[in-house]
Amino acid sequence: MNDRFLRACRHQPVDATPVWFMRQAGRSFAAYRKLRETHGILELAKDPALCAEVTLMPVRDLGVDAAVLFADIMLPLEPMGVGLRIEPDVGPIIEAPIRSAADVGKLRSFEPEGVGFSFDAIRLVKRELDGRAGVIGFSGAPFTLACYLIEGRPSRDYATAKAFMFREPAAWHDLLDRLATMVIDYLRAQVKAGADVIQLFDSWVGGLSSADYRTYVQPHVSRIFRALDDVPTIHFGTGTAGLLEDLADAGGDVIGLDHRVSLAHAWARVGHERGVQGNLDAARLLAGWDATRDGARVVLDDASGRPGHIFNLGHGVLPATDTDLLRRLVDFVHEETAVSRPAIELGA
Amino acid sequence: MNDRFLRACRHQPVDATPVWFMRQAGRSFAAYRKLRETHGILELAKDPALCAEVTLMPVRDLGVDAAVLFADIMLPLEPMGVGLRIEPDVGPIIEAPIRSAADVGKLRSFEPEGVGFSFDAIRLVKRELDGRAGVIGFSGAPFTLACYLIEGRPSRDYATAKAFMFREPAAWHDLLDRLATMVIDYLRAQVKAGADVIQLFDSWVGGLSSADYRTYVQPHVSRIFRALDDVPTIHFGTGTAGLLEDLADAGGDVIGLDHRVSLAHAWARVGHERGVQGNLDAARLLAGWDATRDGARVVLDDASGRPGHIFNLGHGVLPATDTDLLRRLVDFVHEETAVSRPAIELGA
Repeated sequence: MNDRFLRACRHQPVDATPVWFMRQAGRSFAAYRKLRETHGILELAKDPALCAEVTLMPVRDLGVDAAVLFADIMLPLEPMGVGLRIEPDVGPIIEAPIRSAADVGKLRSFEPEGVGFSFDAIRLVKRELDGRAGVIGFSGAPFTLACYLIEGRPSRDYATAKAFMFREPAAWHDLLDRLATMVIDYLRAQVKAGADVIQLFDSWVGGLSSADYRTYVQPHVSRIFRALDDVPTIHFGTGTAGLLEDLADAGGDVIGLDHRVSLAHAWARVGHERGVQGNLDAARLLAGWDATRDGARVVLDDASGRPGHIFNLGHGVLPATDTDLLRRLVDFVHEETAVSRPAIELGA
Repeated sequence: MNDRFLRACRHQPVDATPVWFMRQAGRSFAAYRKLRETHGILELAKDPALCAEVTLMPVRDLGVDAAVLFADIMLPLEPMGVGLRIEPDVGPIIEAPIRSAADVGKLRSFEPEGVGFSFDAIRLVKRELDGRAGVIGFSGAPFTLACYLIEGRPSRDYATAKAFMFREPAAWHDLLDRLATMVIDYLRAQVKAGADVIQLFDSWVGGLSSADYRTYVQPHVSRIFRALDDVPTIHFGTGTAGLLEDLADAGGDVIGLDHRVSLAHAWARVGHERGVQGNLDAARLLAGWDATRDGARVVLDDASGRPGHIFNLGHGVLPATDTDLLRRLVDFVHEETAVSRPAIELGA
C-alpha cells in the first residue's frame, strides 16, 4: 500500500512527500517513443490496454506515487461534435474553430460513453496498481478548452479567444457553461471508474487579469468544484502569480503552482489549510542533476514539511528530459522528506 | 509643444494622460503594409528615411504623445557578429544559436556605428516632430535577448535558454554582462541622437521566479539603469505579476505593466513615487469599441489621476487591430483625463 499521495491531498501527515509529474506518462520513456512509432497520441489514448500501459510506465520506472491517466484534454470534445487532430510539434488543431454564438449552439451535449476508452483504462490501471499508487483523473478547464476551441490551435496570447469573450459575453458564458457541464460529467465518470483524485488543468488562465477571471471564468470553475466536493481535487494553472487567491476561491483541495512563484509565498496566499502542488522549474531537468537537486531543495525548504505538499514540476515534463534524472529526483524527494520511525530508546 | 509624455515620465502634473502604444509603428497602418510589400522589416529599419516615416505614422495618424523608434530588438546583435533574419509569422531566427561558453566568447563587442541607421532615423524624427511628441528609444533587455540568442527562435517556455542559465552560470553571466554593455552603449547613443526617454523591453522575463530573476538577471539590469540615471527610463516586462518588486528594484522611473495585473494594485506594489505605464488588454481592441472603452475606463479609474501614469496596452498592438479604434482610444484617454482650465467666475 502507498497512500501518501491520497493522504497529502487530504492534508493528512505522510511518511514522505508524494511525487508525480505532469506529462510523466510519455515522451521521456524509450518504451513510449517506441509505441509512438506505430501509434498516434490519440490512438494510444483510445486503446484502453495501451493507454493503461503508458499510464503505468512512470509508476514502474520512476517510482512516482501517482499514475495520471494518459489522455489529451481535447478528447472529451469529440463526443460534443468537435473534429480535431494532434499535429506533431504543434498541438491540438480544431477542424472548425468556434467563432460565433451559432457555432456554440451547434455543440452537442457530452455523453461519457463517447470516451469510454478512458474509463476502461482507469479500471485497468486501478486493478493493476492495487493501491501501490494513487490514480489521478483529469480534465481541461472551461477557459483553457475554450481557448483551443476558438483559436483552433495553440497560440501565444489567445487574443482571438479573449476577443470573443469581450465581444460576445453571452455566447462566451453559454460556451463555458456547456464545457463546465461536460467537465463535471467527464470527471464524475472517471471517479466512478476508479480515479482517486482529479486535477483540473486551467493551463492558459494566466493570460487573464483577476477582474476578467472573476467575470468570465470563475463562476464556471466554481460550479465544477462544487459538483465534485466529495472527491479530492487539484486546481492547476500556469502564470497565475496574479490570480492565486481567485483560483483558490474557485475551489480545489490542492492548488497547483507553476515555477514562477515561490511555493512558500504562494502557500501563504492560498492559505495553509489547503494543500499545494509543485513547483520545480522543468527547465532545471535539462540542466543536469546539480541544477535539479538545488531547485528541488528550494521547493522542499519552501514547503518546510507542512502537511498537504505534493511535489511536482511547475508544468509538464519537457520532451528532452532524461528519465534517469526524473527517477533520481523522485528518490531525492522521498529521501529528503522521509519521516524516520521513532527510535526505540534502549536503556533508561 | 506637447511635453505631456515627458512630464509624466518625470512624475510631473500633465494636462491630460499621455498615450502611446507598443508596436504602434507598424502592422495596423495601410501605409505601412504598402511599404512592406516591397521592403522587409529589417530593410525598413535600416533605411533612416523610411524608418523615420514609419516611426512618425502613429503620431500623425493616431495622435499619440510619443513616437517610438521603429526597430527590431535583435538589430544591435548584428554588429556583435550574430547572423539573423525575421521570418514572417514566426519572428527572429538566429543563424547559429549560442549553446556554449565558447559561443559566448565569440561574440564581438558592440560598436554603435554598426546600427548608425537607427540614430540617423532618431535625428530625422526629432527634427520632424520638433517637440510635438516625445521620442522613445529602446532596447531589448539582456535576459530577453539571451532567450532569443540561445533558443535561436521564439519559444513558448524558453526552456533551452533557462537550462543553459542553470547549467552554466558563469557563461550565462558572461553573456548577460556583454549584452548589458551593448544595451548601455546602444541606448546612450540613442539618447545622444535625440531620444527623450528610453524603454527597456524584458518581454520574456515573466518566465522566471523571483529568486532566479534576482540571481541570474537583476544585477545586469541594475547596471543598465545605473548607467542611464540621467535619462527618464521605462522598464517593461510581461507576465511579471510575481516580479514587480524585483523589476522596480532593478530600476526604471516608470514600470511597464501588462494587462494581467490590476494597475491600481501593481502601482501600490512598485510605489507611488514611481510612474507606471499600461495596461489595457490588447485583445479588447479586437472586440470592438465598447469592449475597448470599458477596459480603458478601468485602467483610468485604477490610475485615478495620479501623476506618472502613461496609458498604453499591456503588450504590443495585435496585427489585426483596426487603426480607427486606436485613434478613438487615444482621443478617449485624452478627453477623459483632460484637466479643465479653471473657469473664470463671473459675478460674485
